[in-house]
Amino acid sequence: MADKIFRVNMSDLSTSIEDVPQAWAGLGGRGLTSTIVAAEVPPTCHPLGPNNKLVLAPGLLSGTTAANSGRLSAGAKSPLTGTIKESNAGGSSAQLLARAGCKALIIEGQPKEDKWYSIALTPDSITVSEETALVGKGNYEVAKTLSGKLGGKQGVITIGPAGEMKMASANLSVMDPDGNLRSNGRGGLGAVMGSKKVKYITIDPKDRKVEVADPEAFKTANRAFGKALVDNQVSQTLKTYGTNALVNVINEAGALPTRNFTSGQFDGHDKISGETMYDIIQERGGKPSHNCHAGCVIQCSQVYNDKNKQYKTAGFEYESIWAMGADCCVDDLDDIAEADWLMDDIGIDTIETSVAFGVAMEAGVLQFGDGKTMCQMIKDDIGKGTPLGRILGNGAGSVGRSFGVTRVPVVKNQAIPAYDPRTVKGMAITYATTPMGADHTTGYAVATNILGVGGSLDPLSKDGQVELSRNLQIATAAIDSTGMCLFIAFAALDDPNCLPALIDLINARYGLSLTGDDVTALGKTILKTERAFNQAAGFNNADDRLPEFFYNEPLPPHNLVVDFTGEEIDSFWNF
Amino acid sequence: MADKIFRVNMSDLSTSIEDVPQAWAGLGGRGLTSTIVAAEVPPTCHPLGPNNKLVLAPGLLSGTTAANSGRLSAGAKSPLTGTIKESNAGGSSAQLLARAGCKALIIEGQPKEDKWYSIALTPDSITVSEETALVGKGNYEVAKTLSGKLGGKQGVITIGPAGEMKMASANLSVMDPDGNLRSNGRGGLGAVMGSKKVKYITIDPKDRKVEVADPEAFKTANRAFGKALVDNQVSQTLKTYGTNALVNVINEAGALPTRNFTSGQFDGHDKISGETMYDIIQERGGKPSHNCHAGCVIQCSQVYNDKNKQYKTAGFEYESIWAMGADCCVDDLDDIAEADWLMDDIGIDTIETSVAFGVAMEAGVLQFGDGKTMCQMIKDDIGKGTPLGRILGNGAGSVGRSFGVTRVPVVKNQAIPAYDPRTVKGMAITYATTPMGADHTTGYAVATNILGVGGSLDPLSKDGQVELSRNLQIATAAIDSTGMCLFIAFAALDDPNCLPALIDLINARYGLSLTGDDVTALGKTILKTERAFNQAAGFNNADDRLPEFFYNEPLPPHNLVVDFTGEEIDSFWNF
Repeated sequence: MADKIFRVNMSDLSTSIEDVPQAWAGLGGRGLTSTIVAAEVPPTCHPLGPNNKLVLAPGLLSGTTAANSGRLSAGAKSPLTGTIKESNAGGSSAQLLARAGCKALIIEGQPKEDKWYSIALTPDSITVSEETALVGKGNYEVAKTLSGKLGGKQGVITIGPAGEMKMASANLSVMDPDGNLRSNGRGGLGAVMGSKKVKYITIDPKDRKVEVADPEAFKTANRAFGKALVDNQVSQTLKTYGTNALVNVINEAGALPTRNFTSGQFDGHDKISGETMYDIIQERGGKPSHNCHAGCVIQCSQVYNDKNKQYKTAGFEYESIWAMGADCCVDDLDDIAEADWLMDDIGIDTIETSVAFGVAMEAGVLQFGDGKTMCQMIKDDIGKGTPLGRILGNGAGSVGRSFGVTRVPVVKNQAIPAYDPRTVKGMAITYATTPMGADHTTGYAVATNILGVGGSLDPLSKDGQVELSRNLQIATAAIDSTGMCLFIAFAALDDPNCLPALIDLINARYGLSLTGDDVTALGKTILKTERAFNQAAGFNNADDRLPEFFYNEPLPPHNLVVDFTGEEIDSFWNF
Repeated sequence: MADKIFRVNMSDLSTSIEDVPQAWAGLGGRGLTSTIVAAEVPPTCHPLGPNNKLVLAPGLLSGTTAANSGRLSAGAKSPLTGTIKESNAGGSSAQLLARAGCKALIIEGQPKEDKWYSIALTPDSITVSEETALVGKGNYEVAKTLSGKLGGKQGVITIGPAGEMKMASANLSVMDPDGNLRSNGRGGLGAVMGSKKVKYITIDPKDRKVEVADPEAFKTANRAFGKALVDNQVSQTLKTYGTNALVNVINEAGALPTRNFTSGQFDGHDKISGETMYDIIQERGGKPSHNCHAGCVIQCSQVYNDKNKQYKTAGFEYESIWAMGADCCVDDLDDIAEADWLMDDIGIDTIETSVAFGVAMEAGVLQFGDGKTMCQMIKDDIGKGTPLGRILGNGAGSVGRSFGVTRVPVVKNQAIPAYDPRTVKGMAITYATTPMGADHTTGYAVATNILGVGGSLDPLSKDGQVELSRNLQIATAAIDSTGMCLFIAFAALDDPNCLPALIDLINARYGLSLTGDDVTALGKTILKTERAFNQAAGFNNADDRLPEFFYNEPLPPHNLVVDFTGEEIDSFWNF
């Protein structure tokens, strides 16, 4: 049976299962969510109104045995940025959606009544039910309850209280194989789901499996692909230390934004580093390596236990730890883990919210370094929707506007993550130009600027950075369409066998004969589709700029500023 | 002695008195503030950072005996809208600045230390002093204290706690001849003054007078001009009932935005009308007519006493009463007067803040109609800068974003005032296109749509409205440069002697021979200068639109929506 589009109209609670239009047939993941949003969402609509749509799509390879292919793309017009948005997450849902034959799930409209609903998807049904019991509950409780009802299956996508309150940093939470949570973190897509009054979605593929056109070729390609991944040096580091291996690396480079982006180095870096975290995890009987979805061979996730050796949090990422740590000057990993768990449970983006705390600390709302008060405000203010919680829960830009702070690290109102653009100049271009608002994953120039992957470029110089970011953003848009985790990029950039194997996987899955050029063309098309949406929504080149202070305030220790001209930034789009 | 530019650099507390550049010689009021802001402020700077400048300028005729010539223009990049901003006010300061020989006062830079300052201006000096005693005080106390120090003179411009806290709706307060307050209300210019750490400015012209090139011709022209004003029917209504005469008129037209813009008529209109207010004022021994600056012959202001016949508030305007009244469903004039006084004392724009309350009521923060809680929140939340106060004090857009409300009546993040654009279609064009963000004064199409002034145009039809708004906006930009109150426009539109007399006044003051065409050309140049600034700041045609709900939600009782196409709106700029 061919894959279908599953559609729910929340205005009248009707549902439909539709054939996939020809134009969408070759698309998956980000390529598909961005295409559907561009085709069906009026660019000037209010992101929280009935005319926005939430689109969920597994990648082209999701649901197969292909290594690392379990990313779920979510798309909509973002309430945080006002731009088109794709945010992807691990967890089990992409694989289960693909197995259920769901090419994409589109949730549109808005109920008039003040009631909450859930959506249940199987290969041949999509139903909407009123929900009361789990409304107001945190994501962990929702996941646990539903997993029980589903007989231990992990097909759950949910929003927490932040999404219910339509906070612009609210995320979607996706259950992982162990019942823990992964997040479509950025851009407030949880608020879009909340605006449609959908508390959660369950997915049960029953016994349906994904069909592969050429199983033998697929198996061969998958073997080569998996080998490229596990042989890669960065993959191995990620397996041991998680993404948090970066704290010491980025601090050493002078690019670790500290104390609300006023320094590039954090005195307490060692206390929050991946190496320290590894030791704590070992000592407390956690798991240093853990896969966020079945079939992942990198296993950068981990389980972090508290002092009593009880589960505290999982998927404890560098960007979250940097944001709560260096940017807020908190040097206690247990405080950071507590904050991470709370944010996951409330359902709010850890990057956006922690950068918001950094701005709030500069405003004097709380003191730099005060991790305990940060946790209390997450729980009692954001979690309960007090006015302060609303200010924080709407992101760094919201805090800056509310308290009159001028040093607010955002692009298109989305918080800049863990790599200062004054010292990793490739990231200046990525933050400025990506259609998503400041997002490190869309063109991870850190690889070539700092990690020596895919060649090497001086991070302190602007030479070659526009071209680097362009190539990375094109490739990433394509990778984000496959369902592949972005971390395959390290192998793809350095191992000549990796990318051909990936293309072979797609060809074997669908019986196609795509080439590398086709993949590049796909990436370009996705970026241009996204940019056209943003332009129709009112964005222009003036929005592709970093905040004023990055041009005026030199960042210690290198004491550099962002020195790209507007013309140089805009030349990114010359392709 | 020729007029001078007075300049204060708050970064190093230096001051200078400079010759007026030739290009600025023929300019005053809005024409001058917008020209200086466009010339000296980087369009992409942060409005609350050191690169923004606050410019104060009397009009071309301010300080003379010309009737109604006492408006003070304030200009900057607005922290509310991000656009260029001119906001003008009555009171005594424009006349005193002109008499002091001050063509414009420019305040630039920003102190590094956390100290507050005052600025004192005389004809031959401009000094900066540290201020401590009045920091944190309300505007009424500041005005009273300084008036005493100035020996009863009224040369005071101040900010209240809202401006000190850099709230985006903070205004400038200008003392009037009786020691009461008028406001440069819109666009948050009080926050700009607060960001420069200037609590207040005093102006003492000593015995300097404005020189008039041809005193006889001036006298003759002023007689004709004054006669045109007092003979005008609208002027006479304004004298009796104030601007609040409009409540019943606009309600009858079905254009009185009610309950956060969900109806065009308010059940309680009679209780808050100008007629009712007149009776209350008479009964309690207030003043139905009162001039906000010396030489005003219209006297639309009034003094409103409380139940104990004690002063409560002055300058009690239709737009404020509408906003707190119909838009928030509060039908008690005493509650509204209390809120008006509190907002004046705290120093925050009554329109923006009251519309913000309407959005907050829709969000359930307080109940529609609850004037008592509104007053308490103004005092205890906005006045003290609690998180809720920050949300409210940053305007309607801030409340909408914070609470996820989709019905948020703003253009360029500034609240739409008292005339629903679905039912007074000329105002749809003015709100959408004015470089100021939604502002009724910039092109008051109500005159011709509803009041039958300057001809008559069907308010329910879009025919002719673009041209009407264009002509009005051009004329208004010119009038805003003269120091004249906008209310001369009613006479100017209907009495053929009025506008020639005004031009004669300018010619006699400066020894010029301007014609009506020159005045029109000036208005066009101002609008284009302002628009060019906004474009350089990143604004484009997509920003010249009304919020989505005006296009989708018909407004009772006429059940119309805004039906201008984007192309029709953009044709406004064809001149």
